[in-house]
Amino acid sequence: MKVLENGTITSPSGYIASGVSCGIKKDKEAADLAFIVSEATSDCAGVFTQNLVKGHSLKYTIDCAGNGKARAILVNSGNANACVGEQGDKDAVSMAAAAAKALNCDPREVLIGSTGVIGKPLPIDKIIKGVIRAFESLSENGGHDAASAIMTTDLIKKELAVELIISGKPVRIGGIAKGSGMIHPNMATLIGLLTTDISISKTLLDKALRYSVNKSFNRITVDGDTSVCDMLLALANGKSGAHIETEDDDYIAFRDALEYVCTKLAVMIVQDGEGATKLIEIRVENAASAKDALGIALSVAKSPLVKTAFFGEDANWGRILTAAGYSGVSFDPALVDIFIGDLAVCRKGTSIRFDENKASEILKRKEISVRISLNSGKAWDRVWTCDFSYDYVKINGSYRT
Amino acid sequence: MKVLENGTITSPSGYIASGVSCGIKKDKEAADLAFIVSEATSDCAGVFTQNLVKGHSLKYTIDCAGNGKARAILVNSGNANACVGEQGDKDAVSMAAAAAKALNCDPREVLIGSTGVIGKPLPIDKIIKGVIRAFESLSENGGHDAASAIMTTDLIKKELAVELIISGKPVRIGGIAKGSGMIHPNMATLIGLLTTDISISKTLLDKALRYSVNKSFNRITVDGDTSVCDMLLALANGKSGAHIETEDDDYIAFRDALEYVCTKLAVMIVQDGEGATKLIEIRVENAASAKDALGIALSVAKSPLVKTAFFGEDANWGRILTAAGYSGVSFDPALVDIFIGDLAVCRKGTSIRFDENKASEILKRKEISVRISLNSGKAWDRVWTCDFSYDYVKINGSYRT
Repeated sequence: MKVLENGTITSPSGYIASGVSCGIKKDKEAADLAFIVSEATSDCAGVFTQNLVKGHSLKYTIDCAGNGKARAILVNSGNANACVGEQGDKDAVSMAAAAAKALNCDPREVLIGSTGVIGKPLPIDKIIKGVIRAFESLSENGGHDAASAIMTTDLIKKELAVELIISGKPVRIGGIAKGSGMIHPNMATLIGLLTTDISISKTLLDKALRYSVNKSFNRITVDGDTSVCDMLLALANGKSGAHIETEDDDYIAFRDALEYVCTKLAVMIVQDGEGATKLIEIRVENAASAKDALGIALSVAKSPLVKTAFFGEDANWGRILTAAGYSGVSFDPALVDIFIGDLAVCRKGTSIRFDENKASEILKRKEISVRISLNSGKAWDRVWTCDFSYDYVKINGSYRT
Repeated sequence: MKVLENGTITSPSGYIASGVSCGIKKDKEAADLAFIVSEATSDCAGVFTQNLVKGHSLKYTIDCAGNGKARAILVNSGNANACVGEQGDKDAVSMAAAAAKALNCDPREVLIGSTGVIGKPLPIDKIIKGVIRAFESLSENGGHDAASAIMTTDLIKKELAVELIISGKPVRIGGIAKGSGMIHPNMATLIGLLTTDISISKTLLDKALRYSVNKSFNRITVDGDTSVCDMLLALANGKSGAHIETEDDDYIAFRDALEYVCTKLAVMIVQDGEGATKLIEIRVENAASAKDALGIALSVAKSPLVKTAFFGEDANWGRILTAAGYSGVSFDPALVDIFIGDLAVCRKGTSIRFDENKASEILKRKEISVRISLNSGKAWDRVWTCDFSYDYVKINGSYRT
């Protein structure tokens, strides 16, 4: 498998995309409508937020994605189309219909997404006009513009593509994602869009997607808040000529490549977490079960006290052990070792002398790994998080108004 | 029942206290050792953190409080005596022994507490010397000094006393508390010390304490982190001459007064939450069960996005509904009404037009009530929280070093 230079969602064969501005965001120049189109109808799979409250666009898409066929994805940013009553459902239908009209396809083959402020009606007329311009702008290089157009508080564009060989044929997987705040598993905590030119059954695409998401997008947290509009969609159009029918080695190779793309995108989201200055991997090892490892990793990754300590570059391992202790997981604190980078800071649940200069050098890095060894088994898991800074407060203190 | 002017933990009869500095904190002048002594041996009850990791002083006290008898409470601030291995257990015994020696009582009748940095050995020699000065300083007005001496990042002293009449006799309940960060239920998320001059069986004192704590200290959150050293202790020395033996009207009156004291102290803790600028009551009404109401109230109260929005004085009810949606409680979002103060901002899960000036006026207040009506039952509960500000990040970015 190789990572493609400048890869994006249009890197796989048979996909075109665009990103245009239709005036939804405060900055009227900013791109806010992304359109991704497959030349032919694709198989599709999706994973959606488990928040009980669901946005109107999302509900439409959950319904349509059930058919397993899709021609296009249309996503607006700047407005979540959530909690606005019946008008929201109507607007979702209108968005999909406008795209279907331009493409001359069934509206139920257009999957849609909306991300941004909750509780404000969509400026649907602007979007419908925007769809026409988005359609006219579609191109094989349009993935980069689409990646820009789905951004809200994101500071960096998140896109990636890989290529692998299946049955002697080059197969590509491309993806874009957005998300920066309101990021926490269960599931997908953001918008992620993936394309591939492989041919694969809906059942297997679904299985590979769930596997990959569980190891990537379900292992990141920025603030512990699960959004109402999160979704991850994958399209497979078969354009490469390669085909997967059973769970053979080809399937494993494809699934692992998909996991790679998902993990890279997920980590980009944490790195670009609202106000984040550092990416932190919380790795729990030697646990009695993978479930225990995940429970502790999530509890530590979510703790505002741990996250502010990393912002302050403070080797406050006591807060790490504290967060493990209230995770609800049963373990023996007297067996726990904690490492920041490769520096041991706690052995058998007890403080040890460590080189504060070395700790300070590790904590200044942009990427930090924390290892918590429970010494009571062989299972492990990991979660990525970011630090909690002044800017998180600044960004979120005045988002709506 | 009346609230006593300038009331504190020494307001009930038969208690003396002091607060001295023994040089544990960075500011060597700051008081860091609180001593509360009952003239006679008291009945006692305690509620302790449910964090799996427990501080050494706390473990000692959990063990001793089981006897149901106590003569004194000794608490140091500035160092948590947690996660330092065997030395921590030894230091706990030494602290209690020093106090017992001064008082000429059984060391197991001295309950101790330590709060502050985790993972650093106690400066036990300083504390032992401090105990002698604390003993010499004991006085009937010393409750105020004790309240100061247990503070860590607290900005305001938390103390209170009430008086009620039981069997024709005036009975008093006094309390002090500390806590500002690492505040989240399960269970007492802080240090709270209570005294009363009533005579009451350990069983009933325990019952009244658990009832009160559950409605007060277990209903507050600052950052979702449950500390390893939290405890709430209550002493009852019988000095008033009033006696409670069964769960009669006197018991109810006493219990309700205890709940009042606990609630006032708990709310003071949230008001003084690290970096807090506002006290916010999250009230969930018309729920199918009290458990549902509490689940949603806690989820909303913990959400960093909700808390930063309050800091920014932004009527972002979408985040409130979002946090309710991921609480794990099953409810129908289409029935939900949300009020900020007395202003309706969401009806039937849908945005409504509201007066932004009125919202802005309410959000500028120091105390704000949020009401979430599920319209699906008659149960309710409430949780107090505070906003999330730049100062929370500042305080916690550099606590240890």
